[in-house]
Amino acid sequence: MACKMSTDRLERQLQFLIEVDKLKNILRRTKISDGSRLENDAEHTWHLMMMAVVLEEHANERVDLSRVIRMLMIHDIVEIDAGDTFAYDEAGKATKQAREEQAATRLFGMLPDDQAILLRELWQEFEARRTPESRYAAALDRLQPMLLNYLNKGDTWRNHGITSDRVHAFNAHIGAGSQTLWEYAQTLIKNAVAEGYLQQGEDISGE
Amino acid sequence: MACKMSTDRLERQLQFLIEVDKLKNILRRTKISDGSRLENDAEHTWHLMMMAVVLEEHANERVDLSRVIRMLMIHDIVEIDAGDTFAYDEAGKATKQAREEQAATRLFGMLPDDQAILLRELWQEFEARRTPESRYAAALDRLQPMLLNYLNKGDTWRNHGITSDRVHAFNAHIGAGSQTLWEYAQTLIKNAVAEGYLQQGEDISGE
Repeated sequence: MACKMSTDRLERQLQFLIEVDKLKNILRRTKISDGSRLENDAEHTWHLMMMAVVLEEHANERVDLSRVIRMLMIHDIVEIDAGDTFAYDEAGKATKQAREEQAATRLFGMLPDDQAILLRELWQEFEARRTPESRYAAALDRLQPMLLNYLNKGDTWRNHGITSDRVHAFNAHIGAGSQTLWEYAQTLIKNAVAEGYLQQGEDISGE
Repeated sequence: MACKMSTDRLERQLQFLIEVDKLKNILRRTKISDGSRLENDAEHTWHLMMMAVVLEEHANERVDLSRVIRMLMIHDIVEIDAGDTFAYDEAGKATKQAREEQAATRLFGMLPDDQAILLRELWQEFEARRTPESRYAAALDRLQPMLLNYLNKGDTWRNHGITSDRVHAFNAHIGAGSQTLWEYAQTLIKNAVAEGYLQQGEDISGE
């Protein structure tokens, strides 16, 4: 910004907030519910935060909702540099962690140190899925694209030749965050197969 | 959804969450920071939530950040039915409240009653700007488009013939939420005029 800033601290915060505007240009493989275009990471994140609030009662364990929301808020920030790694891209996933760690260093590092540390810790907590909050957040991050995909008659699954066993295996950790939502997701997978939106996989557990 | 649901309560929650996906198609008058396209309400909301967390220390009063974030999260939901009323559209603003109240009834009414009441109260609190949380949230909702407009060399201001006195008057309540951010915004208005992004208004207070 050309503005003269009152403090260096505010300047760093605003530069970070301007930089993360780029998340609006990071496209996912999933289309929004009306199928008109691909979803971007920023609006995806807002949708997850809405889900976190509305579905809180279905989390397996009591969660600190404020922490869940802040965790979701920044969970995809690293994709500004590292890009969106498609859920079923095994080659991409091999280098994902290194690319994302580097991105976290640059992006969170734009903030004053105290804030950089806090947000990076939140992101690491999300990635590790070792707390009730991160398991619930991760469950929503899996359920949301499944919902959109279902509404789009399996568009992403069909375009990428994804079968039901892979969808089942990839999303099973929804159950670690919310058994209720995982039961719902399994019904959704079955219905998607029945309606021809998703190809039946060979592994019977992926029915 | 064609899925058989475990409970009517979960079904209502999911129907609401699918309905609000439409917020991704509600376009604002502001472009995203790279100027490539108009911003939509969903990604705008995510951006405000990021700002709320990062800029918390600049709020005039101590705020319950969790409440600020939840308030921002739903503050534009009514625009799914009522549309985005442009900040400087006086005719549109005359009917805005009635249109938005009707939208709130329909949209929040999709949720189980307890949640519908809570979210509608949050929205009303945001609109009334009578609490520290709503004043801070409203300040961010004004500052964010100013930042984007500045980054786009005053694109929206120039396209709609908005002068600096109107920008000053419309955004002055930023100061009620954060004096620091209002000082920053005033510098931004002055710089925008100096750089030719914004036409100088007649009222000297709008310099």
